[in-house]
Amino acid sequence: MSGEFDFIRRFLAHFPAARVPVGPGDDCAVLPPSRGAQCVTTDAVVEDVHFTRAAFSPADIGHKALAVNLSDLASMGATPRWFVCALALPKDYPLRELTGLARGMAALATAHRIALVGGNFTSARELSVTITAAGELSRAPLTRAGARPGDLLYVSGTLGDARLGLEHLRAGLRRGAAVRRQRRPEPRVALGLLASRHASAALDVSDGLAQDLGHLCTASGVRAELEVERLPLSAAVRKALGPEGALAGGEDYELLLAVPPGRSRAFERACATGGHAITRIGHFTEGRGWVGRDRTGRVLPPPEGFDHFRPRAMD
Amino acid sequence: MSGEFDFIRRFLAHFPAARVPVGPGDDCAVLPPSRGAQCVTTDAVVEDVHFTRAAFSPADIGHKALAVNLSDLASMGATPRWFVCALALPKDYPLRELTGLARGMAALATAHRIALVGGNFTSARELSVTITAAGELSRAPLTRAGARPGDLLYVSGTLGDARLGLEHLRAGLRRGAAVRRQRRPEPRVALGLLASRHASAALDVSDGLAQDLGHLCTASGVRAELEVERLPLSAAVRKALGPEGALAGGEDYELLLAVPPGRSRAFERACATGGHAITRIGHFTEGRGWVGRDRTGRVLPPPEGFDHFRPRAMD
Repeated sequence: MSGEFDFIRRFLAHFPAARVPVGPGDDCAVLPPSRGAQCVTTDAVVEDVHFTRAAFSPADIGHKALAVNLSDLASMGATPRWFVCALALPKDYPLRELTGLARGMAALATAHRIALVGGNFTSARELSVTITAAGELSRAPLTRAGARPGDLLYVSGTLGDARLGLEHLRAGLRRGAAVRRQRRPEPRVALGLLASRHASAALDVSDGLAQDLGHLCTASGVRAELEVERLPLSAAVRKALGPEGALAGGEDYELLLAVPPGRSRAFERACATGGHAITRIGHFTEGRGWVGRDRTGRVLPPPEGFDHFRPRAMD
Repeated sequence: MSGEFDFIRRFLAHFPAARVPVGPGDDCAVLPPSRGAQCVTTDAVVEDVHFTRAAFSPADIGHKALAVNLSDLASMGATPRWFVCALALPKDYPLRELTGLARGMAALATAHRIALVGGNFTSARELSVTITAAGELSRAPLTRAGARPGDLLYVSGTLGDARLGLEHLRAGLRRGAAVRRQRRPEPRVALGLLASRHASAALDVSDGLAQDLGHLCTASGVRAELEVERLPLSAAVRKALGPEGALAGGEDYELLLAVPPGRSRAFERACATGGHAITRIGHFTEGRGWVGRDRTGRVLPPPEGFDHFRPRAMD
């Protein structure tokens, strides 16, 4: 067997066998007809853009590559079903690192019961992992376009930690909660599924709340009033970045949710029961764009967003 | 709007709007439930591995990136339905080249009526295009595992032209039929659909017939007897590479098909009616591996296969 086929075999060995009519190894995977509508997303992580091999372990890279895709499925309220993984590897990429990458990815895949059904290897100058993931809907999807004036605005977890983790990594720190949030984002799949019973709109916060809230407002044709003092921040983020830094920070992979006022109590109760941390951080009105206000009601200037496409030097 | 979103908008503008519940622009595309089983494949083309920007126009790159995925769908007998496209672009990639790439891809997508439903942009040091494509089956899939002793072996089109085209490009030639086969492979989608009514097994010849016939034999647990003098070769390939070179050559994107003897006449007739060039090049027996024989029955030594994972310097 040639190098490519041997690599594929070794990579696949870390994943549970997919229960599909035809799995990896043929020209295509074959999947049974889906009962519900399908959600599909594709997302890549690229060396020196989204991670460095100095600051991320191979398992971190494998985890993050899948996590960012699962986060997109979560934001639609979909149940993860299958994914395919296209790996571009430098010619000298060590087999033990490929093993680590597979293990990190397989652990997250197993936790979310999503099956690896196919993949592709190619050589490249830099390491990158491009995943396409699909989930199934059991009710209407949570799009960005469903928010209505009067809806309440919620966000899950805490904001800014991944950005702080990036700053820690750039400064040479290799441990701590913030670094872990940067390396190992946890997609909010269970919350997305729960939210699909209550929310009118959702997206995952990948480019920073400032930018992503703008997307939600634009897609829904509404305006958001954000109570900046209510932003859920860890003590470390509050101290190091403040609310403005947390708003601009990217890669939170938290869910931003619009919930009609009549559903908010049921939603909050269901989150409490399910152990999902959520915080109400504002509401929607008629209009366009969003505005942040401090506790005195004063309008705050919007922070600059976060865009992976702009050059980022990590180390 | 930031650079990334502007790029996405401009790229999408070249494609017809996808008729799906949720198209590009949300966290996921939403697709209606599929009636039949689904085929899914993922394949990447990477700068300086699968193409160079000196030898391929942007439209060539866009065409080829989609074509190699459509070829995988063709080999299963699937009807193309949707695809997602992850682009990794160097920071200085010119907008007019992105336009060319989109146009080349959109023309092929339109020809095969496959809808672009989502995508992703990221920066990278080298240009790469990673596509995940899905098709729908109306009957059982054509896998690699279905060939049985007694089945006849067919191949579509001609072999070796893409390899010859690669040699021409390396030598500085920029025109001609062989160069076109290398730059603009034509996926055999209609033939795959037709073959799914007759054939017992199929794959697309991407790594060279020598290697891919080996995959078919291994997956099916059979042996192939290849009549080397029957290989369909263009005059240019016969002169420049000979049958051995055509066997080793890669990127043919022709279909290799196993057809039960009782179906062969109907299959050949249907191909003639549909205008699909196919050639019977051997048959399957009990055993393992494959053997090539010349017209005297002498066994020929197997040529070395083709593996993109091995370093290739194109220019």
